[in-house]
Amino acid sequence: MKHPREENSEENQSKKVAVEKKYKIEHDTFGEIRVPYDRYWGAQTQRSLQNFKIGGKKAVMPESVIRSFGILKKAAAIVNMTFGLDKKIGEAIVKACDEVISGELIDHFPLVVYQTGSGTQTNMNVNEVVANRASEILGNEIKVHPNDHVNMSQSSNDTFPTTMHIAAVTEIKKTLIPALTTLYEALDNCSKKFKDIIKCGRTHLQDAVPLTLGQEFSGYSTQLKYGIQRIEAVLPRLSQLALGGTAVGTGLNTKVGFDVKVAAKISELTGFDFVTAPNKFEALAAHDACVEASGALNTIATSLMKIANDIRLMGCGPRCGFNELLLPENEPGSSIMPGKVNPTQCEALTMVCCQVFGNNTTITVAGSNGHLELNVYKPVIIKNLLDSIQLIADACVSFTKNCVVGIVPNEKKIKMYLENSLMLVTALNPHIGYEKAAKIAKTAHKENSTLKETGIKLGFLTAEQYQEWVNPKNMIGPKEYKPKH
Amino acid sequence: MKHPREENSEENQSKKVAVEKKYKIEHDTFGEIRVPYDRYWGAQTQRSLQNFKIGGKKAVMPESVIRSFGILKKAAAIVNMTFGLDKKIGEAIVKACDEVISGELIDHFPLVVYQTGSGTQTNMNVNEVVANRASEILGNEIKVHPNDHVNMSQSSNDTFPTTMHIAAVTEIKKTLIPALTTLYEALDNCSKKFKDIIKCGRTHLQDAVPLTLGQEFSGYSTQLKYGIQRIEAVLPRLSQLALGGTAVGTGLNTKVGFDVKVAAKISELTGFDFVTAPNKFEALAAHDACVEASGALNTIATSLMKIANDIRLMGCGPRCGFNELLLPENEPGSSIMPGKVNPTQCEALTMVCCQVFGNNTTITVAGSNGHLELNVYKPVIIKNLLDSIQLIADACVSFTKNCVVGIVPNEKKIKMYLENSLMLVTALNPHIGYEKAAKIAKTAHKENSTLKETGIKLGFLTAEQYQEWVNPKNMIGPKEYKPKH
Amino acid sequence: MKHPREENSEENQSKKVAVEKKYKIEHDTFGEIRVPYDRYWGAQTQRSLQNFKIGGKKAVMPESVIRSFGILKKAAAIVNMTFGLDKKIGEAIVKACDEVISGELIDHFPLVVYQTGSGTQTNMNVNEVVANRASEILGNEIKVHPNDHVNMSQSSNDTFPTTMHIAAVTEIKKTLIPALTTLYEALDNCSKKFKDIIKCGRTHLQDAVPLTLGQEFSGYSTQLKYGIQRIEAVLPRLSQLALGGTAVGTGLNTKVGFDVKVAAKISELTGFDFVTAPNKFEALAAHDACVEASGALNTIATSLMKIANDIRLMGCGPRCGFNELLLPENEPGSSIMPGKVNPTQCEALTMVCCQVFGNNTTITVAGSNGHLELNVYKPVIIKNLLDSIQLIADACVSFTKNCVVGIVPNEKKIKMYLENSLMLVTALNPHIGYEKAAKIAKTAHKENSTLKETGIKLGFLTAEQYQEWVNPKNMIGPKEYKPKH
Amino acid sequence: MKHPREENSEENQSKKVAVEKKYKIEHDTFGEIRVPYDRYWGAQTQRSLQNFKIGGKKAVMPESVIRSFGILKKAAAIVNMTFGLDKKIGEAIVKACDEVISGELIDHFPLVVYQTGSGTQTNMNVNEVVANRASEILGNEIKVHPNDHVNMSQSSNDTFPTTMHIAAVTEIKKTLIPALTTLYEALDNCSKKFKDIIKCGRTHLQDAVPLTLGQEFSGYSTQLKYGIQRIEAVLPRLSQLALGGTAVGTGLNTKVGFDVKVAAKISELTGFDFVTAPNKFEALAAHDACVEASGALNTIATSLMKIANDIRLMGCGPRCGFNELLLPENEPGSSIMPGKVNPTQCEALTMVCCQVFGNNTTITVAGSNGHLELNVYKPVIIKNLLDSIQLIADACVSFTKNCVVGIVPNEKKIKMYLENSLMLVTALNPHIGYEKAAKIAKTAHKENSTLKETGIKLGFLTAEQYQEWVNPKNMIGPKEYKPKH
Repeated sequence: MKHPREENSEENQSKKVAVEKKYKIEHDTFGEIRVPYDRYWGAQTQRSLQNFKIGGKKAVMPESVIRSFGILKKAAAIVNMTFGLDKKIGEAIVKACDEVISGELIDHFPLVVYQTGSGTQTNMNVNEVVANRASEILGNEIKVHPNDHVNMSQSSNDTFPTTMHIAAVTEIKKTLIPALTTLYEALDNCSKKFKDIIKCGRTHLQDAVPLTLGQEFSGYSTQLKYGIQRIEAVLPRLSQLALGGTAVGTGLNTKVGFDVKVAAKISELTGFDFVTAPNKFEALAAHDACVEASGALNTIATSLMKIANDIRLMGCGPRCGFNELLLPENEPGSSIMPGKVNPTQCEALTMVCCQVFGNNTTITVAGSNGHLELNVYKPVIIKNLLDSIQLIADACVSFTKNCVVGIVPNEKKIKMYLENSLMLVTALNPHIGYEKAAKIAKTAHKENSTLKETGIKLGFLTAEQYQEWVNPKNMIGPKEYKPKH
Repeated sequence: MKHPREENSEENQSKKVAVEKKYKIEHDTFGEIRVPYDRYWGAQTQRSLQNFKIGGKKAVMPESVIRSFGILKKAAAIVNMTFGLDKKIGEAIVKACDEVISGELIDHFPLVVYQTGSGTQTNMNVNEVVANRASEILGNEIKVHPNDHVNMSQSSNDTFPTTMHIAAVTEIKKTLIPALTTLYEALDNCSKKFKDIIKCGRTHLQDAVPLTLGQEFSGYSTQLKYGIQRIEAVLPRLSQLALGGTAVGTGLNTKVGFDVKVAAKISELTGFDFVTAPNKFEALAAHDACVEASGALNTIATSLMKIANDIRLMGCGPRCGFNELLLPENEPGSSIMPGKVNPTQCEALTMVCCQVFGNNTTITVAGSNGHLELNVYKPVIIKNLLDSIQLIADACVSFTKNCVVGIVPNEKKIKMYLENSLMLVTALNPHIGYEKAAKIAKTAHKENSTLKETGIKLGFLTAEQYQEWVNPKNMIGPKEYKPKH
Repeated sequence: MKHPREENSEENQSKKVAVEKKYKIEHDTFGEIRVPYDRYWGAQTQRSLQNFKIGGKKAVMPESVIRSFGILKKAAAIVNMTFGLDKKIGEAIVKACDEVISGELIDHFPLVVYQTGSGTQTNMNVNEVVANRASEILGNEIKVHPNDHVNMSQSSNDTFPTTMHIAAVTEIKKTLIPALTTLYEALDNCSKKFKDIIKCGRTHLQDAVPLTLGQEFSGYSTQLKYGIQRIEAVLPRLSQLALGGTAVGTGLNTKVGFDVKVAAKISELTGFDFVTAPNKFEALAAHDACVEASGALNTIATSLMKIANDIRLMGCGPRCGFNELLLPENEPGSSIMPGKVNPTQCEALTMVCCQVFGNNTTITVAGSNGHLELNVYKPVIIKNLLDSIQLIADACVSFTKNCVVGIVPNEKKIKMYLENSLMLVTALNPHIGYEKAAKIAKTAHKENSTLKETGIKLGFLTAEQYQEWVNPKNMIGPKEYKPKH
Repeated sequence: MKHPREENSEENQSKKVAVEKKYKIEHDTFGEIRVPYDRYWGAQTQRSLQNFKIGGKKAVMPESVIRSFGILKKAAAIVNMTFGLDKKIGEAIVKACDEVISGELIDHFPLVVYQTGSGTQTNMNVNEVVANRASEILGNEIKVHPNDHVNMSQSSNDTFPTTMHIAAVTEIKKTLIPALTTLYEALDNCSKKFKDIIKCGRTHLQDAVPLTLGQEFSGYSTQLKYGIQRIEAVLPRLSQLALGGTAVGTGLNTKVGFDVKVAAKISELTGFDFVTAPNKFEALAAHDACVEASGALNTIATSLMKIANDIRLMGCGPRCGFNELLLPENEPGSSIMPGKVNPTQCEALTMVCCQVFGNNTTITVAGSNGHLELNVYKPVIIKNLLDSIQLIADACVSFTKNCVVGIVPNEKKIKMYLENSLMLVTALNPHIGYEKAAKIAKTAHKENSTLKETGIKLGFLTAEQYQEWVNPKNMIGPKEYKPKH
């Protein structure tokens, strides 16, 4: 009963036409329509398949949305049984939903995101598949109805945004935060491992005063730590569920208490805390919580872009660049330049960041265009949000495993730079003043000599003073204040 | 001593050349340079003026940044006096800073944002102006030095990001949140005033089941309420100050405790809670907190776009549109169509939203491009962030005052639509089932008749049943569940 | 020999481990690696598969890139045979390439776009598959080498950007322009069909002076016409090929004339005009031509967004909205509101536009981040560019077929609005002046009466004058100037 | 009569209230309103000032728009005189317009862009100022009417988009293209000057095969050359003028031929080629031409970002970075690190690029949101478009003058890198094959020795062969093909 999800091409359809008895006849308020005999979906899904040939396979509704729909429909059936839904039917629905949740039925959800902006067609796809499978479970003696039973007390307008939040929160908690944590820990570990390696700092990409490589990495790990805080900060609003609002947010055709009960049930089924949205009108008509979440992901992507760029830069070489870090060699780099190894993990990660920035634009524009009681950009919003979540999560794991944990400082090179740097001159500021210090640096620069030689030659200090004053170890933190008497 | 901030054009400069004794000679490590005699700034400011003729007046560093620099330099001087800074000098610096804070000296800050990416030139502009003014306060007997005194224990690299956070937090708390609150209250008030007006809902811009106008506005006020939560959620990270990190984050040339003390002093001077950044490397090299704040503003802009669009749509008419809301008439609308009044406040607000979306892109790209120990996109980041804050704040106040508080529902039209709507048919679902209900609606639609007539004609219900079942007042919320026995 | 492209998951891999003899041993400069025995790819492809588990199936390199690689490798082999490549080997490569071009071998290209930013791994994937298949064609007697033969005179650095341009130009010419033309023609046809339907114009979403529905649609068709001009305007730069630049743009390891010959051959094979890039350094290090093309697509998307929004707005109703256009009913609209039909094609199209806007951001950031001799965001750039092309093309076809061609003006409603509109008052401007005209309009508005009644009542005109002056047919174009004597 | 444009603050207004006789009473269809006695503007401008306190000084309507309005009104008056406008009045309007064009009256245009989205209030501001000044020119004996005379045959809806195009085309031709040309020439000159300096190429930021510094700069100059082509490619559509469309595009209240004549007159007055828009409906309802132009600017910004980043990178040092280029020292770099000189022009330029990217997002969203007969995001679109034009132009001039022309190659360092680079190994590919070459490179890398030593030690070549085969001069271009016999 499982079929490749992507066989929705015209060619495949037409080939099948040739074969007899390959179709069943379904009907809806629009009339009859032929549906492949071996699919659980019905008329409305089939119409969508035919009317929205946009984007191909890559535009198929994300699996996480489908699984979240399974959870939603299961929770609704369980609650509906306390509100009069026939037990037999309810339990069959629950069983069918379990198959949706497990992913077994994924081939029965062929629709693309570029469909009705409410996601109605995917809601109906779920209703049809669950109803038909539940009927089958019941031996086809009782007919489970997609609308009257599976969609009971629901509307596309509240189910789709509910699954958006279930899917986003689930992926954030199950995938994204662990991945960010993995990278955080790897960077934090680098920060500790490299705490005694003093190096030349660089500001404006120009040589600057020293810091430790550990300090440098502590900036990165802090960015990750804050990134986790950022995504966690959006959860209070992203964990609100629209379910119970039905068509326009009023809750028409639901029962008092349905919304609270169903949110509790969804929390129980997922193991994550969800609450019913205090205001259902906002929950249907706007997707600000998704825009906000995308803003957090966008911020995390700016962090990752910076970190990957830095590591790539410090690793550039081997002979004609900074070459302060030795990155793990994972594959041959160039098809023409033998021996060359490229920072490919940095490249993959920064490409991911670009995609996340673009997804944020998409989500922003889509989120801003809601009209009256319904925002009809739901599918494209959740597609982009889940894409950003997965890309960041996958890339963080790959970057950690294939790059960060294998980074080796090139201590020889780092030391050479440090000793050579003119910027140690800053240590002289408190002793001889800004302008004399500047003169030493400029002269040494011009004459290609060392600070020490130049300082002595200019008569601004002695060799002993230089030795005492210019010690990189004393330059990597503030000093205790000792009042002069 | 006050001069127009914008007289930095080449023409003006050259005109002045003609006039004798209009200049004083300043010098820096690069040599001599002429500076207008009546300005407090010095050589480095003057060089920047001449080297960065980009963007003209509109690109001048925001005043809020300059004022925040005044606060920072004052706080630093006060703390520095506990670390050995001469009291006389320190107190003169404090006085000069007070004039910067008050805005009196604004004409002495002529630099544009398109300068050094660290904001160094603005930091030096402040150092020079404060030093020269402080020297003047001291009767020019003691020479206050821009670097050694005003910039003591500081670097552009930690002062500029510190002022970015001071300015952003200040504008958010003093301007933005009150403005958002104003709009929130106006919308919430509408929600209460309009709670008994039942209207035709619309989803997909198509007629849908009813809700009250109050419910509709409750969605908007909820969006504003969450918007305030969103911007507040970024404050923990935006309230961290880089000061004490000096050049690369290590705190070189500062004293132990300087960072904590100066953050406390800034909190005291501003009345807002600031803390020293736990990790200074992150605070100099990244501006993720600004990107995050921009993400929140971007989300707020999506809310405002939606609300303004809805109000414009409900107000469209007067005869050929929805015309459910009568918007206040503030000005003649068209130069050719007399009598026409346009939703101009909605238009201004939605243009603001577009600008905020764009600013967010700018901030994102700028934030992602930091290199090693320093992000050198600081000025453009803070310019755009403050611009977004001000635009949203100003537009919310204008929109509230000139539009929202004056909205009057056109109850006659609203009632007419409601009675006409075919979507009341939904109330029949629980009574006669989805498909019969659909048939009534479609038939009435085709025959241009009412639901009641059609339902009776099709034999699906009686007049009495229609009257009982289809009551909009019963359609604006869930029902109590009554189990059947 | 064909296998599902997506079976690259860890689970599948590990299952296979259990089965004996499922792998062949390949090696590269990094050592040995196991590759599924039934795939043509080799060591480098396999390493990439294992090192870049990012984005899953949806992130697989677009087929259009793979097919373009087939064309490139074929063209290179043909030209290389004139430069000393063994004929037997060359011809086997050509045959293997034909299978790549036809799509037969698509399952042998499993890599995702989030890989090396130069696309090296996909270039090697192609080299490996073509070499192994060509060797097989030669009965495995002669070993075709991926680098020495298939990649002869090439580098990833010039092949990947070449395929980017081949793929983009091909999709633009074969798919996009025909789709835009289809929509253009449908809109232009509407413009002609509706040329005599006079309707109330609307500016600021407020009633305005009349125009014909045909004129309104002529604006839309003009947008499409210009859209086609826009995308055509980028082709001169997008048709330049990097091939012949090899690793850094110098053409090292190629022969004089190779670049010109290979571009000519690619033109011949594709039927589209390509030229060798006059400057190969630009062609490798920047992808401005792709950014430019995305800018054109972005502009087209703004046109489509506007058109779809307008049609949705004019179609809103059926009873409580504008209802000037009757859109085709393609599917049931709501799972709870029977009889409701939604503008789903408009919704799909506007979601596509949002995606294109986001893709443009991605491409812009990626395009801006090239470093020195190579931009390493190639895969993400071409993925997004091809995505935008396909989405616009598919959506234009779907929108035309399922919406535009079926649009029926609701002439009754249109006429009713027109007669009711206060804005016909503008016709009085030249006769009674702006201020009197304004007074009529405002009074009629306040008293809910007609312009005619009010004008007469105010004594500004007679019934005859009204009849003569206010004729919508005279208001839909400029008048001939008749000088007064 | 000239007053600072920015004195529109509430404080200033209220101060003035205190002073007697400072106001004149104006009226419009809304009633009476007080206007400062010394301003030419009237009631509608004053209302806008009071109703739109958004964005402050920096949000004032760009001067280029005001000057373009002067041209438009002048052209319209001249053409209107051929269509019955009283000569005296017409000529007075022309004179008043000349003062608008010259910039003399700029202080009389105080409105911000965040006003009515049609720009109506700025159109009325111009009408009022021109009418009042023209009346004054006529000795106040004849009253020139803002609507009936100055706005004759016009509507805000066609004048504002007309000035958008006049302003954009003018700034592109007068400012942007010359600035791009300046930078192009400077880069092209570098390309020629540096044509004999062979250096280590870098791909993936890793050492690669050599090229000349001149070749590298030829990539940059090519980017600029194409940038000029890109902006020129949008002119055919940007040079179309909406004037003659009046309120909705029909041309109501204009005379046949007005549109063509007025476009010709505007061409004459500006010296640039403008044509009347063939379709006025598109010209009012969409601003695709502005979106398209912004797309070209966005592309140019990606070029500039890449170039500035490269130059900054090659200039990084002085001791711990690439240090291949010595950039001009224009100012002291750091307030704490004496002697440090930063790539400040690169920083300003890349900040400009970020702003242009953001402006493009703003313009895209604003351009996509037109409704029916009018896009009401006109002011924000033109503000951002002109901002991008000016910023790129200013920054290109500054970057050229203060950076590019002063770049000096550090030939010693460049040579040292080249000789050290392992990537010269590529030259061995055609002689000893890819894998042996790779082995040499890897071994030399590991043993920190030279390619030559290693190659000999491994027995793959002799010293003579190395000398012959590995010659960077032979590696910077393709070779002539010599068939083997």
